Amino acid sequence: MLATVIYGERDIRLDDVAEPQLSSGGDAIVRVVAACVCGSDLWPYRGVTETKEPHRIGHEFVGIVESIGDDVSTVKVGDFVIAPFYDCDNTCANCKNGVSTSCLNGGWWGANDRQGGFADGAQGEKVRVPHADGSLVATPTLPDDAQIPGLLTLADVMGTGHHAAVSAGVTPGSTVVVVGDGAVGLCAIIAAKRLGASRIVAMSRHADRQAVAREFGATDVIELRGDEGVAAVKALFDGIGADFVLECVGTQESMDQAIRSARPGGMVGYVGVPNGGAELPIRTLFGNNVGVNGGVASVRGYIEELLPEVLSGAINPGRVFDLQLPLAEVAEAYAAMDERRAIKVLLRP
Amino acid sequence: MLATVIYGERDIRLDDVAEPQLSSGGDAIVRVVAACVCGSDLWPYRGVTETKEPHRIGHEFVGIVESIGDDVSTVKVGDFVIAPFYDCDNTCANCKNGVSTSCLNGGWWGANDRQGGFADGAQGEKVRVPHADGSLVATPTLPDDAQIPGLLTLADVMGTGHHAAVSAGVTPGSTVVVVGDGAVGLCAIIAAKRLGASRIVAMSRHADRQAVAREFGATDVIELRGDEGVAAVKALFDGIGADFVLECVGTQESMDQAIRSARPGGMVGYVGVPNGGAELPIRTLFGNNVGVNGGVASVRGYIEELLPEVLSGAINPGRVFDLQLPLAEVAEAYAAMDERRAIKVLLRP
Repeated sequence: MLATVIYGERDIRLDDVAEPQLSSGGDAIVRVVAACVCGSDLWPYRGVTETKEPHRIGHEFVGIVESIGDDVSTVKVGDFVIAPFYDCDNTCANCKNGVSTSCLNGGWWGANDRQGGFADGAQGEKVRVPHADGSLVATPTLPDDAQIPGLLTLADVMGTGHHAAVSAGVTPGSTVVVVGDGAVGLCAIIAAKRLGASRIVAMSRHADRQAVAREFGATDVIELRGDEGVAAVKALFDGIGADFVLECVGTQESMDQAIRSARPGGMVGYVGVPNGGAELPIRTLFGNNVGVNGGVASVRGYIEELLPEVLSGAINPGRVFDLQLPLAEVAEAYAAMDERRAIKVLLRP
Repeated sequence: MLATVIYGERDIRLDDVAEPQLSSGGDAIVRVVAACVCGSDLWPYRGVTETKEPHRIGHEFVGIVESIGDDVSTVKVGDFVIAPFYDCDNTCANCKNGVSTSCLNGGWWGANDRQGGFADGAQGEKVRVPHADGSLVATPTLPDDAQIPGLLTLADVMGTGHHAAVSAGVTPGSTVVVVGDGAVGLCAIIAAKRLGASRIVAMSRHADRQAVAREFGATDVIELRGDEGVAAVKALFDGIGADFVLECVGTQESMDQAIRSARPGGMVGYVGVPNGGAELPIRTLFGNNVGVNGGVASVRGYIEELLPEVLSGAINPGRVFDLQLPLAEVAEAYAAMDERRAIKVLLRP
């Protein structure tokens, strides 16, 4: 079968690889219907993080169950399933606490050291899913083609944006600033609106993303950054800043922007994967009673809550995919995101 | 009148200084009935922070109102009052948000640049209190002498321990670790118990403090630190750590201990004044979804909630004062705390 392999900086190839096999009674094999490229995939693509040896890549997919191990009971062959960007047993102490990304038995797509051997990346034709019962969520019926993009966001970006809002503790009537206008930041706007925020500021400099932000519920857009961006936020909110700030980038600059945009006593929910030397300025946080909460999002636990709203169209996070390509053009998909020609690219095997 | 002045490392003197005068209609002059030495006073005492020129020191006191300005309406001459460790108007945007330590008009005892000129430190015979209406809380009646220590803790340590627990979000039935067995850490145990924690671990190596910790509600004591301390905490809680950790010291070591003692998805409430280069390890926080929240505690807003329980004896935070001295022996008070001969020293002018 075909699957995406990263060889190094800006070197993405579609290789012929071995078909996955069931390796335990809890496994499922899923034929990928749609996958996509994540902002975090761009770190190795850009060479910001090193690729020491070629490896499979991708961690977001939806698809059809092709086969299941003897122990699998919650999904069956033929089901359309959403896979979170990791696998988890959904029964361990951390999963029970709602932190399935810290599952004591789970792991990451594309890792070399997984139970049952190699774990597939998701940008390929099929994926072996360990802990299928804990990881996969089947839709009630087979979805329409038009519903695929929205369902795919539940694998990562919609759940991650939701995690930023939940981690910050967004409350009805509150004021929210979203730092980052990528797919996660845009989904965080949907999440803040769902949770009842009365004012949502998108920090964005790109007209196309500003348009999506407003469509998703942003009430204000600020193009300024740094000191000027902070001043613009404070000017909107009593001179003191916003109740909640959702950090959806992961750089030092974006984290500083987020922390300084929060009012005293405010909370930063962060989901941007910390890149390089990002640090938290403890004295600023302490002096202003600004908290930080978040991390790698336990999206598995959010799928049941968000799925009905995606299926009904009440929320439309699939809108973040502004380019669809066949899997054969995966290299172009990376290039389009790298060059900001696309917000997020959906791939169809 | 007499008031404490710090001249430099381990150089504390009781000087004859000018009596305070009302400088605005919102001021009150309070005759100090009891004051005390704070763990944070030990930073300049030990030379960890530099004392560039001699200045008044102390920030915790209770006393009797001697005179008030024309605009003061919530306290009257003769009232027994509790002063938070700062003054605040209790009406600005930040005070309304419950963050009176970020009051847009308030400030700190002992500062040189206050409204109306110099602000007294609290380790003296009298204090001028700006924003008396916003800052001071009068007791319903004049308290008994035995109630004074408990009331004095509402000026700082009891409210600060409570802030750690509130910032962490301690919930009924939860598990809590308290890092720090000073007065604030001990009060944090009271706070965790009040909020319904079912298991409270005191990290303490001192038998006298362990005894107070158990009296306040600690169910377990761990003497180990570092890797061994973390392992001991995890062994108590499913191998993953505690739901909430209250950091009440402010060093890099104590913050590391706190963060590593929290389970994935757990929360650290921190109130230890960050000392020196304390940093937050963002990748550890991110990977484990451990949040940090807290800061300089807005104790003014907690006085009304905690005062009835102190007066009734339902909680007994005054127990942290294990040494009482006349103000004349203030230098000995600092030495006793510095040398850990006392948990906290109460001073009577």
